[in-house]
Amino acid sequence: MFLGKVIGSVVATKKDETMRGSKLLMVRPMLADVANLGQLKTGANTIVCVDTLGAGEGEMVMFVQGSSARQADGLRAMPVDAAIVGSVDSVHLLGNKAYDSKKS
Amino acid sequence: MFLGKVIGSVVATKKDETMRGSKLLMVRPMLADVANLGQLKTGANTIVCVDTLGAGEGEMVMFVQGSSARQADGLRAMPVDAAIVGSVDSVHLLGNKAYDSKKS
Amino acid sequence: MFLGKVIGSVVATKKDETMRGSKLLMVRPMLADVANLGQLKTGANTIVCVDTLGAGEGEMVMFVQGSSARQADGLRAMPVDAAIVGSVDSVHLLGNKAYDSKKS
Amino acid sequence: MFLGKVIGSVVATKKDETMRGSKLLMVRPMLADVANLGQLKTGANTIVCVDTLGAGEGEMVMFVQGSSARQADGLRAMPVDAAIVGSVDSVHLLGNKAYDSKKS
Amino acid sequence: MFLGKVIGSVVATKKDETMRGSKLLMVRPMLADVANLGQLKTGANTIVCVDTLGAGEGEMVMFVQGSSARQADGLRAMPVDAAIVGSVDSVHLLGNKAYDSKKS
Repeated sequence: MFLGKVIGSVVATKKDETMRGSKLLMVRPMLADVANLGQLKTGANTIVCVDTLGAGEGEMVMFVQGSSARQADGLRAMPVDAAIVGSVDSVHLLGNKAYDSKKS
Repeated sequence: MFLGKVIGSVVATKKDETMRGSKLLMVRPMLADVANLGQLKTGANTIVCVDTLGAGEGEMVMFVQGSSARQADGLRAMPVDAAIVGSVDSVHLLGNKAYDSKKS
Repeated sequence: MFLGKVIGSVVATKKDETMRGSKLLMVRPMLADVANLGQLKTGANTIVCVDTLGAGEGEMVMFVQGSSARQADGLRAMPVDAAIVGSVDSVHLLGNKAYDSKKS
Repeated sequence: MFLGKVIGSVVATKKDETMRGSKLLMVRPMLADVANLGQLKTGANTIVCVDTLGAGEGEMVMFVQGSSARQADGLRAMPVDAAIVGSVDSVHLLGNKAYDSKKS
Repeated sequence: MFLGKVIGSVVATKKDETMRGSKLLMVRPMLADVANLGQLKTGANTIVCVDTLGAGEGEMVMFVQGSSARQADGLRAMPVDAAIVGSVDSVHLLGNKAYDSKKS
């Protein structure tokens, strides 16, 4: 899985029948900063993830990719390869609290 | 999944028997622009996707990769790893409407 | 799937028993050129694909990766993650014929 | 699989039900150094892996990605795409002992 | 699959139970050189592959990744995503013999 930040959403009325009602969020990966390993920095990609947890814009989440995304709650029969599977409370890197949802 | 723009098509008469009749589209990924996060920019790759929705050149779509592509409508038995599964109406990034199919 | 050009072959006598008799081709991906979108350019990678169609050196093909490669004709039980599944007649990009097998 | 070093952890109380109780570690890949092939160097990515072995911060581990992560002990039904499956004792590169857990 | 050269090995006594006895080799991908297409050059990555063929350091091999690695002989129930499935005799690129095991 990767950490990611929800930066937006996608509306697609015409889509695979099995995906009807799915909420689609734009997620940007968050990585440990090589230059400053106790911190997080934004990655370059943007992934469309199915949201199974009710995440909101700006929220730090954990997402899964590939066939494992279909193991997330309610997604088994869908043609989806990315899903949000956790809402992150905190991230600890090298003894530093790199993220705390209560302070963000 | 990723957002993508349909930029062309592929004709391949001689192909795996199970793919007979499949429409093959060239798709370029679309990503959030790091320098201007409320906008989309084109990615560097080009992927051949099976079209299950009747998408046309210039259309903004959502595509799925890997084994999950075989979950798309009618593709289960095919050797395909990329499929268009949604036609995008709009994309919202950081409070900005980064794409609107009615205006493009 | 990706477009690719066959640039060579691999001989490996000692291999997984299930692969006995498989033809192994070296394939270089072909992508739309960002600087000249109506054209194709060569990618940087080289992939060893199982050939199920009798492709030859210099031929433009379509290949599939991952578990979907095992859906190609006759490959179901093999430890293979890349297979040629189509021979390309033509590629159309932004209204331009970027490739035509009759002219190459 | 890849080699990796455990650099931290993630707390996510709200997550997919099947993941309840899973320990989530931040792992940075370790690669052979091209400029100095007998040594290891850190990669640029950071992956959230489920820990099945009780690994600790600073430990050199081996992790698996994709659907194979669900083959790790106890993870079969979870939406996870990365898992720690080995604790590394030593790495040998070109006749050099590039890593030794007893000396690190 | 990709071509690769065996550059070392990994010892991991504590690992997933199903992997007991597996031989783990460090493999560096080998690619066609864009600047000199009849030759091979080393890639930047290093992958830990399960060896099913008895490969040795310096040997040119073919390896498979992802779920297909579990199709290799004896690996079906293991959490592995990379396996050596062939020992390479020769590689032919654009009419040139880019590798010959008898001469290396």
